[in-house]
Amino acid sequence: MVGGGSDAFIGAIHRRAAFMDNLIELVCGCFSVDPEISKSSGRSYFLPENRIYNTYQEMFEREMALPEEERMDFVTIVTPNRFHFEPAMMALERGFHVVVDKPMTFSLDEAKQLQKKVEETGLILALTHVYSAFPAVKEAKARIARGELGRLRRLYVEYPQGWLAERIELLGGNNAGWRTDPKLSGKAGCMGDIGTHAWHLSEYMTGLKVEELCAELNTFVPGRPIDDDGAAFLRFEGGVKGTLIASQIAIGEANNINIRIYGEKGGLEWHQENPNLLIMKWIDRPSEILQVGNNTFLGEEAKWNTRTPAGHPEGFIEAFANIYRNFALTVMAKLKGETPCADCLDFPTAYDGVRGMQFIETMVAAGYDDHKKWHKWID
Amino acid sequence: MVGGGSDAFIGAIHRRAAFMDNLIELVCGCFSVDPEISKSSGRSYFLPENRIYNTYQEMFEREMALPEEERMDFVTIVTPNRFHFEPAMMALERGFHVVVDKPMTFSLDEAKQLQKKVEETGLILALTHVYSAFPAVKEAKARIARGELGRLRRLYVEYPQGWLAERIELLGGNNAGWRTDPKLSGKAGCMGDIGTHAWHLSEYMTGLKVEELCAELNTFVPGRPIDDDGAAFLRFEGGVKGTLIASQIAIGEANNINIRIYGEKGGLEWHQENPNLLIMKWIDRPSEILQVGNNTFLGEEAKWNTRTPAGHPEGFIEAFANIYRNFALTVMAKLKGETPCADCLDFPTAYDGVRGMQFIETMVAAGYDDHKKWHKWID
Amino acid sequence: MVGGGSDAFIGAIHRRAAFMDNLIELVCGCFSVDPEISKSSGRSYFLPENRIYNTYQEMFEREMALPEEERMDFVTIVTPNRFHFEPAMMALERGFHVVVDKPMTFSLDEAKQLQKKVEETGLILALTHVYSAFPAVKEAKARIARGELGRLRRLYVEYPQGWLAERIELLGGNNAGWRTDPKLSGKAGCMGDIGTHAWHLSEYMTGLKVEELCAELNTFVPGRPIDDDGAAFLRFEGGVKGTLIASQIAIGEANNINIRIYGEKGGLEWHQENPNLLIMKWIDRPSEILQVGNNTFLGEEAKWNTRTPAGHPEGFIEAFANIYRNFALTVMAKLKGETPCADCLDFPTAYDGVRGMQFIETMVAAGYDDHKKWHKWID
Amino acid sequence: MVGGGSDAFIGAIHRRAAFMDNLIELVCGCFSVDPEISKSSGRSYFLPENRIYNTYQEMFEREMALPEEERMDFVTIVTPNRFHFEPAMMALERGFHVVVDKPMTFSLDEAKQLQKKVEETGLILALTHVYSAFPAVKEAKARIARGELGRLRRLYVEYPQGWLAERIELLGGNNAGWRTDPKLSGKAGCMGDIGTHAWHLSEYMTGLKVEELCAELNTFVPGRPIDDDGAAFLRFEGGVKGTLIASQIAIGEANNINIRIYGEKGGLEWHQENPNLLIMKWIDRPSEILQVGNNTFLGEEAKWNTRTPAGHPEGFIEAFANIYRNFALTVMAKLKGETPCADCLDFPTAYDGVRGMQFIETMVAAGYDDHKKWHKWID
Repeated sequence: MVGGGSDAFIGAIHRRAAFMDNLIELVCGCFSVDPEISKSSGRSYFLPENRIYNTYQEMFEREMALPEEERMDFVTIVTPNRFHFEPAMMALERGFHVVVDKPMTFSLDEAKQLQKKVEETGLILALTHVYSAFPAVKEAKARIARGELGRLRRLYVEYPQGWLAERIELLGGNNAGWRTDPKLSGKAGCMGDIGTHAWHLSEYMTGLKVEELCAELNTFVPGRPIDDDGAAFLRFEGGVKGTLIASQIAIGEANNINIRIYGEKGGLEWHQENPNLLIMKWIDRPSEILQVGNNTFLGEEAKWNTRTPAGHPEGFIEAFANIYRNFALTVMAKLKGETPCADCLDFPTAYDGVRGMQFIETMVAAGYDDHKKWHKWID
Repeated sequence: MVGGGSDAFIGAIHRRAAFMDNLIELVCGCFSVDPEISKSSGRSYFLPENRIYNTYQEMFEREMALPEEERMDFVTIVTPNRFHFEPAMMALERGFHVVVDKPMTFSLDEAKQLQKKVEETGLILALTHVYSAFPAVKEAKARIARGELGRLRRLYVEYPQGWLAERIELLGGNNAGWRTDPKLSGKAGCMGDIGTHAWHLSEYMTGLKVEELCAELNTFVPGRPIDDDGAAFLRFEGGVKGTLIASQIAIGEANNINIRIYGEKGGLEWHQENPNLLIMKWIDRPSEILQVGNNTFLGEEAKWNTRTPAGHPEGFIEAFANIYRNFALTVMAKLKGETPCADCLDFPTAYDGVRGMQFIETMVAAGYDDHKKWHKWID
Repeated sequence: MVGGGSDAFIGAIHRRAAFMDNLIELVCGCFSVDPEISKSSGRSYFLPENRIYNTYQEMFEREMALPEEERMDFVTIVTPNRFHFEPAMMALERGFHVVVDKPMTFSLDEAKQLQKKVEETGLILALTHVYSAFPAVKEAKARIARGELGRLRRLYVEYPQGWLAERIELLGGNNAGWRTDPKLSGKAGCMGDIGTHAWHLSEYMTGLKVEELCAELNTFVPGRPIDDDGAAFLRFEGGVKGTLIASQIAIGEANNINIRIYGEKGGLEWHQENPNLLIMKWIDRPSEILQVGNNTFLGEEAKWNTRTPAGHPEGFIEAFANIYRNFALTVMAKLKGETPCADCLDFPTAYDGVRGMQFIETMVAAGYDDHKKWHKWID
Repeated sequence: MVGGGSDAFIGAIHRRAAFMDNLIELVCGCFSVDPEISKSSGRSYFLPENRIYNTYQEMFEREMALPEEERMDFVTIVTPNRFHFEPAMMALERGFHVVVDKPMTFSLDEAKQLQKKVEETGLILALTHVYSAFPAVKEAKARIARGELGRLRRLYVEYPQGWLAERIELLGGNNAGWRTDPKLSGKAGCMGDIGTHAWHLSEYMTGLKVEELCAELNTFVPGRPIDDDGAAFLRFEGGVKGTLIASQIAIGEANNINIRIYGEKGGLEWHQENPNLLIMKWIDRPSEILQVGNNTFLGEEAKWNTRTPAGHPEGFIEAFANIYRNFALTVMAKLKGETPCADCLDFPTAYDGVRGMQFIETMVAAGYDDHKKWHKWID
């Protein structure tokens, strides 16, 4: 693991998700740019001293020197966006599979380099767009693919948050610092941090790509050098229209990502904060409440990604764990020379990472264009 | 009453709303262009034969001939949009106050003429933008005006419906016919019918006017000659940003108009389908659920427009009745030469009617402009 | 109308409900024991001086003296429980139909006398158990009667309120005074005021009668001379088991009456505070959300009692109005010598009034019996 | 681990919960009475062959023979109720700490023996009453203990399920078999399986003990030899009244355990199926929605048991993991000779196990007593 010291939020989520299914063990790491924090973090994770490293460069070098059966199998990168590319590239160059948090890189160019390297090496790179890993989302995607809603027409996707309604990045001691600093976060703030999740969810569920968009980016908190809010009209393949909103100044909202999709025969609705329900809407009969669980009226795609019976709620860590489990099963199949199962392959990859960076590029180009024309997706 | 025969939906709502508070009596009407329907409707409303008219022209002429104390006091116009202007103008010219359904007229020009006539005559014209008459909306407006949310920043308003997801206007026997016919409905379909409600709600609650917008209008159902869906970015006075969506093809949605408003210190949320709840969101404490009722933690504005204690739900007809009651009290005060109370004057007027037509004009100009620039509000 | 002065809550509800459908006109009344309040109330209801009476005895005498076509057709009694019987009996003796608030009388004996008089005279008596008049409740009853849930097994009905969590009856100026005074309210407080509603709803929806019950009544607020909380196990005909809870000390609850019913093939759930939804639960498919409206997937029983399309919420006053309308149509049919339609006859009668008083008797007998045996229904 | 083969539900939950925080490793187990299933399960959990045992007796014997630093530290017992006692007692006799699923034993006598052994040995026994481990429940308990609701008065606790609405235990291949067989499950079916959870939640949150109860147990599904439904009136210490319902025939309900508690100054409400919300109700201000998260308006007790920020839902496995983590930290403290922290000690113990068996005894005594008297808690 690179990053994820005991002072970080998302690293702990990654570790819990990775451990949950007993397929993955933490064997080494470089948990902070501060060697002291890295050491103390590693110890608190029960690692032996010699597997806690001061730099990721050191980690790769020393792990490579270990016998193959002792060496780590893959690396998870949970640093700020600015520091995704180098360790990911180094890992791929040395033959390690990679899990990396989204957005995949700091710039689109870096993303393309990573994707190229993945293609060249045949290694696996998983990107933790976690919201597409909830079982109800899998169910929705499968139903749309089966044509249950008919041809799609309209989509609304939202990710409102309120935690940046004040300039808390000045206080220090929180995760707002690097997220609102363009030198660490990249061109976009709100749109890079959470807008990308909303965009990814919409493409994942519909199986359609955004072709054009018209957007506005806003900065509501005075002095903040990056967007903290925005909205876009989306044009998907096949004439499907979408509206995307993302905000970090919507006071009272925590992580209220949600999506509604409407086709010619029906619609559906999902809210991440109550993630085990999927509402199905029908043109010719009453709406239905699907309750997620491995014992209910769900397809195999959802059940594969479910651990409990209906009514015993699964949450954010379980969704993360779905990515890790599918990634791990894919890696294990590769190691055995087997073909991974179709459900195992269902996790975001370098391809999604590149599209995510393209989304940010396109949103920034469109969002600050006061002419508000339709902007073609930037490849 | 002009229109509102026994085959129409909204006429019955108007009558029930008008009767509820025992301030208004139905004394005469011309209920249909078909004299037979007008007669039979009038009889079913317990009117004497001589007060059931074949045309509104006849109605005005014959009512004018009655002694003042027998004559009707005001006229309600609940015809398709195309037929609002003439009877409204005729009423004003003859000295009758007017209640008219929204949008006020077929064209902006007609709207301005009506407004001018209202100003000249000093008569009262009420426009039934019903959603702004719910008590929870009044409460929200009052709290925003008092600054409880701080300076406003962001607004999301939606009006999704699904009843026009198929081309049911071809079936006849429903209200879809004139609504989807530009010759009866006006330049806009979805935006005129329900988009105007969403827009009005946003200006009413914030007390701010839209200055510019960027929009797209869509027609999803093949063959339909008018928009059945759309979205807009709104720029309000003072830098407040809004997003408006309206759709008639969102299957499973009935009349799910809802609004969320965020300021520097808090936010709020209201859904018309569960109209007696108002969610308040705070930057420094947990969210609150305000339950509307004349015995609860509400201000005087809301209580004035409330008839039951909390937990005994009020609905759509009661909201309509709030407009009628406030209108009637204002008319009665005028008749007595008194100044109407401030709360009595809280109903939409010709001014809102003109702005509503301007909204339609601006949305149509922007919504079909593929350059998607910011369009200034069309005065 | 007897009672319902401008200082009373429920009288205004009755008037609005009666007016809404334009079938009923307020022609006279005695609105208070205080002649001044009666006068001023009557004037504010636009009654002529000579139809505002000081006593109900005077009202009956003077109305009888009027020509039949001017005379009132029926009387509504909205006084405290203690004062239901005498005016109701006097009305029936003089040939007036009656609407009376629940519980029908102060004692079971009075109730039986009224029922006998109704049977003798053939007059109509309607009892305003309003919760059974919501359209979603009608739909549920019809579905249960059609066997959609299979044979019934289990029922949970609740009516929690919180307004009497403190001894506010000592403050005066509210409706708590007579409700907590056994000399005005009758043997039961909470169980008479709201427990009867819960019981009635359960018998109405299932079509089954309670045969035995085991109960406890509690008084939580010190010094209060009557129950403010209670619970019961119910045994219905056919082995159906029920649980009933009612409370007036459940802080934060307003009028949260709700019911869940389960049979061999399905279940259903309804909450009065969001009354336009009915949740249907199925053993072999996902749960459904039925949204009430005159344009949706409902049977004729519900549509008859519905005034708006789905998504335009109807509420408490509309439910009250359903009783008044059905009562009025029944009375009008009688006056014309016609048979009232089946849906018109769907309102609570003296029969329900007697059973309601029996419920109170049985609950009080059981609720204060510390041996907690099953108590047979007291006939 | 004893039990928890790959064909069992709850074993997998235990393992995931135990792994999540990286404090616990699975080192050995006897996963089934069928040695083949035990072997294959153990292999699928990546155990070496020599740590997969055929019987628990063999497991204890062989583990004792290992050096202390290799030997397992504690044993988790996830067999049917009938088979909890023997392995638990054997574990304690050999010095192993124990985690055991609820109800702790088959009979009250066994429970008392276990408790005695725990007291004698000073070993730790954790009982997985999982619902009391949700962070919102911890928050509620802390607020009640601090007196935020004032003196308590009323409590409603429910656990409705629908999965046993038909006699699916005859089908085989599911978890219904042993649960509905008194020889494996114990005296009570529904009340032992889920009623105990509801009872435990009520005592945990209030900090009060049930002193008396009046109950009914029902068997709705013909041929089933054990209760599948029931209800009780509860009398807690200090005059608090409760109502408990539990059912396995409430079609459409999954694991809808929920609780409402009311005191003199406020109330609260929690539903396990949306477990990250806690509704607070106040006598003097609007209700509040507390959203659980380690960054929100919660006390330390809840935050200690929380892993994600608000809006990233935690669920059933995380609640289970709270028991395992607190148990593990307590065991680790003991091993180091330290005093466990107060929050670490917050998990159900043998004491709760004994009370749970007493609850079952009392419910069975009361529930089949047709005289329905108050039954004193059976010690």
